[in-house]
Amino acid sequence: MSIDIVPLGTASAIPTRERNPSALALVRKGRILLFDCGEGTQLRLLEAGLKPTRIDAIFITHLHGDHFFGLMGLLSTLSLMDRTEPLTIVAPVGLYSVLCDVPGLNVEGLGFDVGFRELPDTLQHEVVFENPGYTVEARPIEHRTFSAGYRFEEHRRPGHLDPERARNLGVTAHADFRALKRGEEVRVNGRVVLPEEVVGPERPGQSFAYVTDTRPCENGRVLARGVDLLYHDATFTETFHARAVETAHSTASEAADVARRAGAKRLLLGHFSARYTDASPLLEEAQSVFQNTEVAEELKRYLL
Amino acid sequence: MSIDIVPLGTASAIPTRERNPSALALVRKGRILLFDCGEGTQLRLLEAGLKPTRIDAIFITHLHGDHFFGLMGLLSTLSLMDRTEPLTIVAPVGLYSVLCDVPGLNVEGLGFDVGFRELPDTLQHEVVFENPGYTVEARPIEHRTFSAGYRFEEHRRPGHLDPERARNLGVTAHADFRALKRGEEVRVNGRVVLPEEVVGPERPGQSFAYVTDTRPCENGRVLARGVDLLYHDATFTETFHARAVETAHSTASEAADVARRAGAKRLLLGHFSARYTDASPLLEEAQSVFQNTEVAEELKRYLL
Repeated sequence: MSIDIVPLGTASAIPTRERNPSALALVRKGRILLFDCGEGTQLRLLEAGLKPTRIDAIFITHLHGDHFFGLMGLLSTLSLMDRTEPLTIVAPVGLYSVLCDVPGLNVEGLGFDVGFRELPDTLQHEVVFENPGYTVEARPIEHRTFSAGYRFEEHRRPGHLDPERARNLGVTAHADFRALKRGEEVRVNGRVVLPEEVVGPERPGQSFAYVTDTRPCENGRVLARGVDLLYHDATFTETFHARAVETAHSTASEAADVARRAGAKRLLLGHFSARYTDASPLLEEAQSVFQNTEVAEELKRYLL
Repeated sequence: MSIDIVPLGTASAIPTRERNPSALALVRKGRILLFDCGEGTQLRLLEAGLKPTRIDAIFITHLHGDHFFGLMGLLSTLSLMDRTEPLTIVAPVGLYSVLCDVPGLNVEGLGFDVGFRELPDTLQHEVVFENPGYTVEARPIEHRTFSAGYRFEEHRRPGHLDPERARNLGVTAHADFRALKRGEEVRVNGRVVLPEEVVGPERPGQSFAYVTDTRPCENGRVLARGVDLLYHDATFTETFHARAVETAHSTASEAADVARRAGAKRLLLGHFSARYTDASPLLEEAQSVFQNTEVAEELKRYLL
């Protein structure tokens, strides 16, 4: 099943004409998971043709404004659109009380339930959102303030059934095909056909990690382990290494090193300092460490 | 001197692909006054080529989110841009304490002074911002919550000096021309030349009124009296008159009636319900009452 990753904002603290504050949508089966929600996210969703009513959960990394100032407007709009489905918001401790104090936003009276899952700064690792098809896990990463990285992972999927092989063993009924796929044995012409005979090994689900804002760190690598796509903080080039350390961000080459050591399949660089009107120095630097790297382009769809 | 009015957001509560939440810039001598600051305003300023560092004052009409949710991001960005000039924010009582509670935004530690002028709900009329060249006045208008309308007005300007006439009376020195223009008499060849002899009548300064969100009301008309341009709430057409009353907004024809009765020179319709993807019904309706009407287009510059 196809999963699209759509960066909606790839700027660092100061937005530019080309880059919005942080936000990224994961689109799966017509539903959306939103990672960060900087100012203008609801407008970016419109531009991307993504309906905000389809959002199931929002994951905020940390409480710097460029990562959550779009939340108030988005919640207001969802309320005005008569949303009734519940919405989950996962965020560091503190966000809920802030939202409660915003005039013109009645968090308790939005017309739909908002489930807040607040992450304490003692967080180690936790599954913060579950769905019949996948989980999202959070771990603390290393920023100036408490910041959480997230890993989205689909459940393992049954292996492929080999229809040719099944038919050779006498399987013809649709119900039998489905039962074998579910891992059940079936009886055909007095003979038992085992699922192992016709179904290949279980396949891993697709996975994605969102790791920003942070220094390169162990938890970033754990979140990114073997993922199909890793979105990672790449605020600076190595020229500004000292600045990356000082502001607790990563360089493009550090992001690439995380991807390489975690065995990620692809790396998407993001959270760019406003100084990089042209992102190619970031890309070149990262590719020299990890070839399968791209620069996150806002509104472009990256198929997982 | 030229003054530009630049609508940055003309949507009502729900933004659309084409229309952002409320905001409008008045640009005079390279400086900016901002009326309302809905989500995405700082991004719209970038698109309009207007430097946020040039904002002298921000006037918030009321505390519904679509009129101020862009303020937190704008203030953060100004701080990151190392602004040092003071900034004035005029807004209904309550905004300051909200901004103080927003994590990731240290209102007291922004690096520049923010002067909050909070409007009590007992406001009658008050000059809320002054500058050597103009004043801005606030009056309460009629919305579901306390809402303020604003009138910008330049000071009266000296009349035009007729150089031909002055020369005929023997005036030749630059200093004498300047003195006459200032309203002082000068002595030329033993004869007194009075300013009245060579300078025309004082000219009114340019003026602009920002009146939204509101029902049509007396204070709206007072704010708009004789202005060069009136921006007025025109959320609905008359078809939805009952809805306008219920939500305390105005119809296009009501906005036009305010402009007509106030003797405004031009009317700019704004704050459109998302149902009007095409604004021409609003325009036609208003023009049948007040001919000199335009539909506010975002990022277009309207010369006062």
